[in-house]
Amino acid sequence: MKHRRWRGLMIVLDGVGDRPVAELDGRTPLEAAATPHLDRLAARGLIGFVDPVYPGVAVGTEVGIGVLFGLRAPDELLPRGLLEAAGVGLPLAPGDVGFRCNFATVATDGGGRDPFALPLLDRRAGRIDQGAAELARAIDGLEVGDGVAVRLVPAAQFRAALRLQGPGLSPRVTDVDPGGGRLDLGLLPCRPLDATDTAADHTARLVNRLVTLAHERLRDHPVNLARRAHGLPEANALLPRGAGSARPSCGLLTRFDLRAAVISGDATVLGLGKALNMATLTDRRFTADPATDLSAKIEATGAALAEHDIVFLHIKGSDILSHDHYPQRKREFLERVDTVIAPLLRDDLVIAVTGDHSTPCDLGFHSGDPVPTLLVGPGGRADAQERFGERACMAGGLGRIPARGLLWSMLDLMGYARNYAPGDEL
Amino acid sequence: MKHRRWRGLMIVLDGVGDRPVAELDGRTPLEAAATPHLDRLAARGLIGFVDPVYPGVAVGTEVGIGVLFGLRAPDELLPRGLLEAAGVGLPLAPGDVGFRCNFATVATDGGGRDPFALPLLDRRAGRIDQGAAELARAIDGLEVGDGVAVRLVPAAQFRAALRLQGPGLSPRVTDVDPGGGRLDLGLLPCRPLDATDTAADHTARLVNRLVTLAHERLRDHPVNLARRAHGLPEANALLPRGAGSARPSCGLLTRFDLRAAVISGDATVLGLGKALNMATLTDRRFTADPATDLSAKIEATGAALAEHDIVFLHIKGSDILSHDHYPQRKREFLERVDTVIAPLLRDDLVIAVTGDHSTPCDLGFHSGDPVPTLLVGPGGRADAQERFGERACMAGGLGRIPARGLLWSMLDLMGYARNYAPGDEL
Repeated sequence: MKHRRWRGLMIVLDGVGDRPVAELDGRTPLEAAATPHLDRLAARGLIGFVDPVYPGVAVGTEVGIGVLFGLRAPDELLPRGLLEAAGVGLPLAPGDVGFRCNFATVATDGGGRDPFALPLLDRRAGRIDQGAAELARAIDGLEVGDGVAVRLVPAAQFRAALRLQGPGLSPRVTDVDPGGGRLDLGLLPCRPLDATDTAADHTARLVNRLVTLAHERLRDHPVNLARRAHGLPEANALLPRGAGSARPSCGLLTRFDLRAAVISGDATVLGLGKALNMATLTDRRFTADPATDLSAKIEATGAALAEHDIVFLHIKGSDILSHDHYPQRKREFLERVDTVIAPLLRDDLVIAVTGDHSTPCDLGFHSGDPVPTLLVGPGGRADAQERFGERACMAGGLGRIPARGLLWSMLDLMGYARNYAPGDEL
Repeated sequence: MKHRRWRGLMIVLDGVGDRPVAELDGRTPLEAAATPHLDRLAARGLIGFVDPVYPGVAVGTEVGIGVLFGLRAPDELLPRGLLEAAGVGLPLAPGDVGFRCNFATVATDGGGRDPFALPLLDRRAGRIDQGAAELARAIDGLEVGDGVAVRLVPAAQFRAALRLQGPGLSPRVTDVDPGGGRLDLGLLPCRPLDATDTAADHTARLVNRLVTLAHERLRDHPVNLARRAHGLPEANALLPRGAGSARPSCGLLTRFDLRAAVISGDATVLGLGKALNMATLTDRRFTADPATDLSAKIEATGAALAEHDIVFLHIKGSDILSHDHYPQRKREFLERVDTVIAPLLRDDLVIAVTGDHSTPCDLGFHSGDPVPTLLVGPGGRADAQERFGERACMAGGLGRIPARGLLWSMLDLMGYARNYAPGDEL
């Protein structure tokens, strides 16, 4: 087996980790699921736990996926605004600043026309879907002055990616979005993180001008007139957040001459892949929800494995069902995943199965529980475990390692080992 | 047992960790070996895994041993040139620069006499052994000017340690050796790492002058004339690499008032011990290979335990047999080790058995697999495992810890525990 190299496949089951669920007789959805193919894989290799950034610390998808893709926390992680922009095909050139935005609802009955002074009613405008693209077009290209060009491109549902392009901009500014649970704060005027930073101050003023102009354009837009007529929350405000700029390529994978690909239906995950120079394969059928066409994703993954050294397959449905408190449907979804991935589980691949974080169905949000993980590869070690699930992972031979250690271990099994030298970054 | 202190013994089985081997029925050499004494030790204490610097990351011996000796990666690790020099009795004073060197073969038929312009044929001069000491003496003391004294001392086979001593030197220079697999590059002129660093620039010029003068001395040296006559590759070039300088004492052990000793036949390991102010015990019979006289090493270790608080016994043979793809011989060697170490395994010692890294026999090079490890001491915890081997370690009570954590745990069992205070280095 000397100097032989193998291809790698990482299957990322978003939010796969869970806690015991009463209606599953105290088992987790993964434990309750019949997963014969994953179990066979577990019997051939090692199982254990991965901590995304630190034991007990919950993370968002952009961080959880980022570390699995080889970004070191915290210094190499990429701001969400950059990822969202890259994910919807708004590449950021050096000097550009990207934001992720929500369409939101402010109260327009009474009060003036300053969105920062109006009560914030809904941060997601009733999860608007139909018509959001039209609203984005109404803002795209808005004239904010100072030679700065505005691009707003719709993402899924109430989300959009914003790019500011022009001289003297900086991403070091605060969010207009007050964040979940703080409707009472209303829209927060964008401010520089450092009051003496003139580029950030300039950028913040442009953002506030844009938010004000956007409200003008949106409040009586036909899409919103129709929503008002139907009693739906109007999408009459724009909430930018997560400012970010392009940065030089970074991450563990860039240090190896690897052709990497990611298959996903999620804009953030695709944005991460693009930002890290991976090939990104998506399709209208990859909807990033439980109804996604898994077979088409598996086919795309198989094709990608023919042309890439490492392929990341991201499956979002498990996380969405967890957020919505559906343990039975999460179990069934994992069973469906187990069936469709079977053709990918070849003996001549190094395969990791993991998640970006745990999302217990009882909670409905991300937790700091470590993520059940499986690692197998030609000639690699095996432990005594024969089932893939949280309890089995507690007795598994992989132990409990950081997400970055999982990627290093994959690369090691893939034949890319070279001895660490002082000065190498880990 | 309050406040009682115990002596510590760390047995480092170089490259002991492995992967399942088909000809051992899917067991690793350690699993296949009959090791009743190590098993008894395992039954008395904890077993588990050690990661030298990070999960999944392979290391060389100098790093793997360095972290077991208490150096923190990456900042405290010592350059190999310093270790090699220290190992052969060439201590570096502040301001000196040490290198490790190979004797190599360049083509002398046709072409000029500039070694940097001649084709590089063999980085190890056919692994020359006989006559290498005589060649080193021909270079030792060469006049390179600028008040700099040259010492070249032979190490094992084709290796030698070089020391430059004089004003204005710096170790921040590149290697003349192009490294494994890059014969096509030929000898690389030594350069400063930073072009504006005048001490490094000065040092690089001296190195290049030395390499040129050494070629003059070596090309028609009687040893080489004889090799030419016998059709053997001539040792007619010197390849310095791994420049290093002495640095203030560092490492975990220096923080405790410990008398430490290392028993080894390996120049790098002995150099590490010397650089860290340990007593180093070696002997012509400790050949750092599988035929080494293990009994003499065990005797020396027993004697060292009478006079030191912590003793490191380094056994190299397991690594060499792994590099040479001999799983059966590695198994037999580990059985031999188990037999001879029996007298050392006293109840009144804190004992760790580990390795500096894993070297799977199927691969023939170092891997990032964690290293099977055993820790036992008076009054210490015990787990349910009764065998020492990779699979048993996966279920062991030590868990999976960094190498530095193993040394901390030993010191703790030895009675050197003191509560961590913010600001203490870990």
